[in-house]
Amino acid sequence: MEHTLKYLTQLEAARQGVITQEMETAARKEHMAPSELQALVAKGTAVIPANRRHLCLDHIGIGSALSTKINVNLGVSKDCNDYGMEMDKVRAAVGMGAHAIMDLSSHGDTRGFRRTLVRECPAAIGTVPVYDAVIHFRRPLDELSAEDFLAVVRAHAEDGVDFVTLHCGLTRKTISQLKAGKRLMNIVSRGGSLIFAWMSMTGEENPFYEHYDELLEICREHDVTVSLGDACRPGCIEDASDQCQMEELVRLGELTERAWERGVQVMVEGPGHMPLDQIAANVKLQQTICKGAPFYVLGPLVTDIAPGYDHITSAIGGAAAAAAGAAFLCYVTPAEHLALPDLEDMKEGIVAAKIAAHAGDIAKGIAGARDADRRMSEARRALDWDTQFALAIDGGKARSYREKAAPEEEGTCSMCGKFCAIRSMNKALAGEHVDII
Amino acid sequence: MEHTLKYLTQLEAARQGVITQEMETAARKEHMAPSELQALVAKGTAVIPANRRHLCLDHIGIGSALSTKINVNLGVSKDCNDYGMEMDKVRAAVGMGAHAIMDLSSHGDTRGFRRTLVRECPAAIGTVPVYDAVIHFRRPLDELSAEDFLAVVRAHAEDGVDFVTLHCGLTRKTISQLKAGKRLMNIVSRGGSLIFAWMSMTGEENPFYEHYDELLEICREHDVTVSLGDACRPGCIEDASDQCQMEELVRLGELTERAWERGVQVMVEGPGHMPLDQIAANVKLQQTICKGAPFYVLGPLVTDIAPGYDHITSAIGGAAAAAAGAAFLCYVTPAEHLALPDLEDMKEGIVAAKIAAHAGDIAKGIAGARDADRRMSEARRALDWDTQFALAIDGGKARSYREKAAPEEEGTCSMCGKFCAIRSMNKALAGEHVDII
Repeated sequence: MEHTLKYLTQLEAARQGVITQEMETAARKEHMAPSELQALVAKGTAVIPANRRHLCLDHIGIGSALSTKINVNLGVSKDCNDYGMEMDKVRAAVGMGAHAIMDLSSHGDTRGFRRTLVRECPAAIGTVPVYDAVIHFRRPLDELSAEDFLAVVRAHAEDGVDFVTLHCGLTRKTISQLKAGKRLMNIVSRGGSLIFAWMSMTGEENPFYEHYDELLEICREHDVTVSLGDACRPGCIEDASDQCQMEELVRLGELTERAWERGVQVMVEGPGHMPLDQIAANVKLQQTICKGAPFYVLGPLVTDIAPGYDHITSAIGGAAAAAAGAAFLCYVTPAEHLALPDLEDMKEGIVAAKIAAHAGDIAKGIAGARDADRRMSEARRALDWDTQFALAIDGGKARSYREKAAPEEEGTCSMCGKFCAIRSMNKALAGEHVDII
Repeated sequence: MEHTLKYLTQLEAARQGVITQEMETAARKEHMAPSELQALVAKGTAVIPANRRHLCLDHIGIGSALSTKINVNLGVSKDCNDYGMEMDKVRAAVGMGAHAIMDLSSHGDTRGFRRTLVRECPAAIGTVPVYDAVIHFRRPLDELSAEDFLAVVRAHAEDGVDFVTLHCGLTRKTISQLKAGKRLMNIVSRGGSLIFAWMSMTGEENPFYEHYDELLEICREHDVTVSLGDACRPGCIEDASDQCQMEELVRLGELTERAWERGVQVMVEGPGHMPLDQIAANVKLQQTICKGAPFYVLGPLVTDIAPGYDHITSAIGGAAAAAAGAAFLCYVTPAEHLALPDLEDMKEGIVAAKIAAHAGDIAKGIAGARDADRRMSEARRALDWDTQFALAIDGGKARSYREKAAPEEEGTCSMCGKFCAIRSMNKALAGEHVDII
């Protein structure tokens, strides 16, 4: 079919004035006309990850003018390597509203799992090909060549992956900065650290930077959205907004424009650990330097001292980032920094990310964002518990709280009983007597 | 003793240039000279809740220039009325770092419990006397007189309570606003709704507004800090920053100055449910209208649709408020809107509030706030797990994550194993070979 198309990517289609099926599907989710979304895609301020081989994909748009999307990281590691359980997590995550799944597997039959994902998962699928390189070739890291890295990216594109994280902004300049002791936590990006290690061992330049044009060609061919990785995202409060991070951001801005020139859709990844007062400024900087390309943040985590609760530290930072214009939040689970998350951790992480995304959407005035809140409040005023549970992000948990501690006074809850403010106000405003004892 | 003192309250002492024991104790916790704290107390921008009868109190300061403090709401209701369990919660809360406990009991022997609290609890103790009025007199709400309400406040002051929430800013003007249908959720403040109901049933003005000077006299005598309640705090996103809330805030500004004129310490309570983009503006408004009196916020909750997770919705809002200058965060538990919290809910709420307070302190540059974060990051870089657990807000939970999923490769965790970025970077920067498989 491809020879009959005038475009290979959604970006090229949008520029040619074509409204694709993918745009229509994505626009329907946004209270937005397809032509509006098309205009954003043409400018590059929204992307629709859409590998043509991912046939079961339910398309979504990602951009700061759209509702904030959330990504769920999954995948096996050597210590936790049950692919069946991982597919269960994928299904659960999609059921809970994950818009994208990043498969970060680094052990075993990574390709088989990836192909299963593409066959079965309706959420957008992302990967970080560099993780997979040593598995794919079964060779030590320093025995891989630049061509090998390109080959892995091509394999992922051919498998049907919708977006790939490529740490293209890391250069030998970063090595000298880090060797000069500029950072407390150096590089905490797993992919970034692998490339750094490869560069250190081989003495060569970053192959993802040097061969960027070839990477773009691969991505264009399959309409794989490039997610420019932030190898130098701060790994602690202390390193936030430092020289290394900003140097890389400037590189990512250049690389964004080069992707657009080639017709390739592009997102930019961001922090990381960051004090709350720096987050809005970072979003604004990304928007100017990367010309409005969608910003995909991991966190940000607003303190370093809450392992076991980093779904909360990143919900705080993620909400602030989304409110300031970040388009895409990578979820963080309570297991972050400690262990591979299990199903329960994943659930906690997804709910926290959904809260952050929704809080951001309310704050930035996304169309329809407040509708559910208004209906929830109407149900609260009416003391209509079933409607409250139906509207809740996690109605099951809310219901179990109420059932665990049933109140004596119908309509109220066990916190206040007859002291319930809503009950008192409803009676008082109706001119009724308010009995408390 | 009192006749030998030239002052009755910390505010009067500070104005007279006296540095009290209480100021010294509180200043030690803030990396601050006692004279600095004295100056803040004299201006009213910091308070030291300190009922002279609360002998076991470990004094703290509350103010926007100090580290952000957190309050834990406890107390029995008719549906959950085990006072022994409630004292267990008090001890646990203090152990977890709660700076204040508000006893919101509304059933049974409230006075006995309150006196036990004053005898045993080293955290500052707050109450909302209006809750207790119908219990204290065992009479229906509308059969209580203005004098009865004053008598309850006096009883609490004499019992040794350090701060009392008084909903003095609610007036008959509010009744007409609410009757005109100005709000989706009307009043969700429990105390506010009781006063509203009383006003509706009796036709009289708010006794806490009408008899404010007498209330101040009671509070001055015992150095009870007045916490001006926000009866009209928004109960949903839709009602945030509306006429009712702002009208009351202006009243609270007037009442703040009247308290200061009488030598009484005062805090001002704030929202509530509020979109994230309005929170900083609300803090700034409170600071101008109430002349820098410490702002004590409940949440703010940044969305209405997450019952079961309101510790997270309010951690987002609380962090934003603290970063903008709020001084005191009331914790919110996952049980909010649903049931009386149990011990586990309380713990989740405290940790979330501590994260929010700490994130705010980092953002507003409180002295020493980043020290623990820096040490945590140093321990992370060294893959020193025991130090990480020692520095964590909840080291026990962090440790249990790690023990649940022990990694094969010593020093790493089960998320990344040999793909650990820190391990790779440490090896690469040391010029060592980086083995991944």
